[in-house]
Amino acid sequence: MKKNVLIIGAGGVAQVVAHKCAQNNDLLGQIALASRTLEKCEAIAKSVVEKDSMKLAGTIQCYALDALDVAATAALIRETQSQIVINVGSAFINMSVLSACIETGAAYLDTAIHEEPNKICEEPPWYGNYEWKRKELCTEKKITAILGVGFDPGVVNAYAALAKQDYFDTLSSIDIIDINAGDHGRYFATNFDPEINFREFTGRVWSWQNSQWTKNKMFEVKRTDDLPVVGERTSYLTGHDEIHSLSKNLDVPDIRFWMGFGEHYINVFTVLNSLGLLSEQPVKTAEGLEVVPLKLVKAVLPDPTSLAADYTGKTCIGDLVKGKKDGKEHEVFIYNVVDHKEAYNEVGSQGISYTAGVPPVAAAILVAQGIWDVEKMVNVEELPPTPFLNLLNQMGLTTNIRDEQGERPLTFS
Amino acid sequence: MKKNVLIIGAGGVAQVVAHKCAQNNDLLGQIALASRTLEKCEAIAKSVVEKDSMKLAGTIQCYALDALDVAATAALIRETQSQIVINVGSAFINMSVLSACIETGAAYLDTAIHEEPNKICEEPPWYGNYEWKRKELCTEKKITAILGVGFDPGVVNAYAALAKQDYFDTLSSIDIIDINAGDHGRYFATNFDPEINFREFTGRVWSWQNSQWTKNKMFEVKRTDDLPVVGERTSYLTGHDEIHSLSKNLDVPDIRFWMGFGEHYINVFTVLNSLGLLSEQPVKTAEGLEVVPLKLVKAVLPDPTSLAADYTGKTCIGDLVKGKKDGKEHEVFIYNVVDHKEAYNEVGSQGISYTAGVPPVAAAILVAQGIWDVEKMVNVEELPPTPFLNLLNQMGLTTNIRDEQGERPLTFS
Repeated sequence: MKKNVLIIGAGGVAQVVAHKCAQNNDLLGQIALASRTLEKCEAIAKSVVEKDSMKLAGTIQCYALDALDVAATAALIRETQSQIVINVGSAFINMSVLSACIETGAAYLDTAIHEEPNKICEEPPWYGNYEWKRKELCTEKKITAILGVGFDPGVVNAYAALAKQDYFDTLSSIDIIDINAGDHGRYFATNFDPEINFREFTGRVWSWQNSQWTKNKMFEVKRTDDLPVVGERTSYLTGHDEIHSLSKNLDVPDIRFWMGFGEHYINVFTVLNSLGLLSEQPVKTAEGLEVVPLKLVKAVLPDPTSLAADYTGKTCIGDLVKGKKDGKEHEVFIYNVVDHKEAYNEVGSQGISYTAGVPPVAAAILVAQGIWDVEKMVNVEELPPTPFLNLLNQMGLTTNIRDEQGERPLTFS
Repeated sequence: MKKNVLIIGAGGVAQVVAHKCAQNNDLLGQIALASRTLEKCEAIAKSVVEKDSMKLAGTIQCYALDALDVAATAALIRETQSQIVINVGSAFINMSVLSACIETGAAYLDTAIHEEPNKICEEPPWYGNYEWKRKELCTEKKITAILGVGFDPGVVNAYAALAKQDYFDTLSSIDIIDINAGDHGRYFATNFDPEINFREFTGRVWSWQNSQWTKNKMFEVKRTDDLPVVGERTSYLTGHDEIHSLSKNLDVPDIRFWMGFGEHYINVFTVLNSLGLLSEQPVKTAEGLEVVPLKLVKAVLPDPTSLAADYTGKTCIGDLVKGKKDGKEHEVFIYNVVDHKEAYNEVGSQGISYTAGVPPVAAAILVAQGIWDVEKMVNVEELPPTPFLNLLNQMGLTTNIRDEQGERPLTFS
């Protein structure tokens, strides 16, 4: 039984995490919030007060923290007596925050694979280059570390585990499809940090096909599906975190990730990428100034958190799973739909941040309750999916299924 | 009778100017070349030696010069005993070089209107904000200053004057059409300094219609013409230097400039411009670095001089003039065609630089011969066009006409 949560990060996802922790502080205890910029933490804490999100009376304590500093992070974990750390900061800080958790015994939860600033689209399995190197140490020290417990990765890994547990004897393919059918009304914007967003697509995209790693270029392979709520949508084969663990943990020959993009997004991306403006490597201007092009592009694009107030429409993210049950081929689509406006009204963030921010709080509750406090390092598909999806149903992320019997919500009891 | 030429600038146009001055050094005397970067001057001087361009034995003397420094520029004019200055440096240095010429008595020739770094697409007539403020002083001091004597502005102004002199009693419209039907083989590149190139299009575009200034946005108005050699081409209403003088010096109700762009150029421009990446105003990155976006875009694009070796295809630039002659409506198209490859073989630059670099040398020869040494400030349409076009015919830029009698070269004797 663990309690007291330290949230690291202060972007749109951290805003959701803070609100959801506040709504469940009877289970989670004290909540602390830390990021490099104290003002951003304070703005989130203020929003929690304004929306009256705290279930039991209390406040969110805010701290300025350089999370690359392991000693400072460990000290803050001790100072706040946090037994659970939810890391929703930049993907560059995973390994240092994980170190601080291992040092202090706190449970570690994050929502994306570790990245190094000067490297993109690393060799698979990407986790093998970073987090998984600490797997044995976590087992030895009884550290609960749940990797990639956002929506994708995270909930989609639980959907895969659920499919295997309840709907199939053998699985032949898992196609994770992520569609944002929302509209932010700007000429162009990314839904989370543009730097992290573009880094996913500027190198190779890795997929798991015929039980081996396959590489493609972005936008080289696409599919079109008629999906629940959002209708007919085109999505593109993309590299993504969950493929790097699902391919190891589930015995499925084809595991692919597909992300929906409109033609306009693809055009803007292609122009910027072709000109070298998405590069993570510095270039020098005629005046001798060294500039990382991607950082300038980030500076001219809208701050993703500024999109939330005007965002309309819905997201649809799910797993299309094929395989055999009782000797017969069949397929199911297990999915979630979020409305941007409803998310904004509840927690002040748009739907993309909402889908990413609710799951780590559900996971933290399961850790606090001992249900997921596994005292080792795991990816989400290695955990029992039912308690997680059941809790998410209650917390605002409902699970639905489409199969031979049509579309319907799933309940777990 | 003036002699000895100082060329200021060391880009693709300066390369053409240097070669053409060398080919005519019997008329022009000593040739000096100055720019901020000495190495660029030396590379051009070396190319003149390699191509054996000097008519009479001699060398081009190279100098490092900050042409914004009037005293240093005047000192170099005196040191090199130059009586003619050809300014083909950045448009930011016009006013300081002009000052140095007024101070030393040298004739001043340039190929574009003065610009200030932090201002774009200024109020018309643009010349009125800068060069024309020195008109009286030039008259008083008997300074020959020929403004905008490249191709466009420059030769197209002479075409307008020729049309008025030889083909019409009254003119109703002059549409200057500039088509580059060449192919540089790169994903995207500009044919001259990207910074100067994009600054033409990111604000308002001014045209002279119904005898008044009219403003539009770039790519708002287009036309399609079936043109000699290059065939059917679409061009877009663009602001351009020559409209600012022709509208004052010729009594013509409609004077417009049209530039040809492919859909790919327009798309790349639109993406960059919409995102704010073509701005001349600095932005700050998350790390606190101040960057002028346009300067980074310039840094990632190919150096225009690097395009020359692979450039194929032709340019077609001309004046479509309509009006009355002997009471009858008619129209003529007076134009020039340049082949990129032939330009490269002759002087090591592509066709766009060739069309811009040959005319100021022809003008310098006419000044040296006394024919255009007018001892005042003028735009090209104020000078007799025939000697200029006759000389250009001999120097590689032939003038052609298309009218009721078909297409044919024009000769002047």
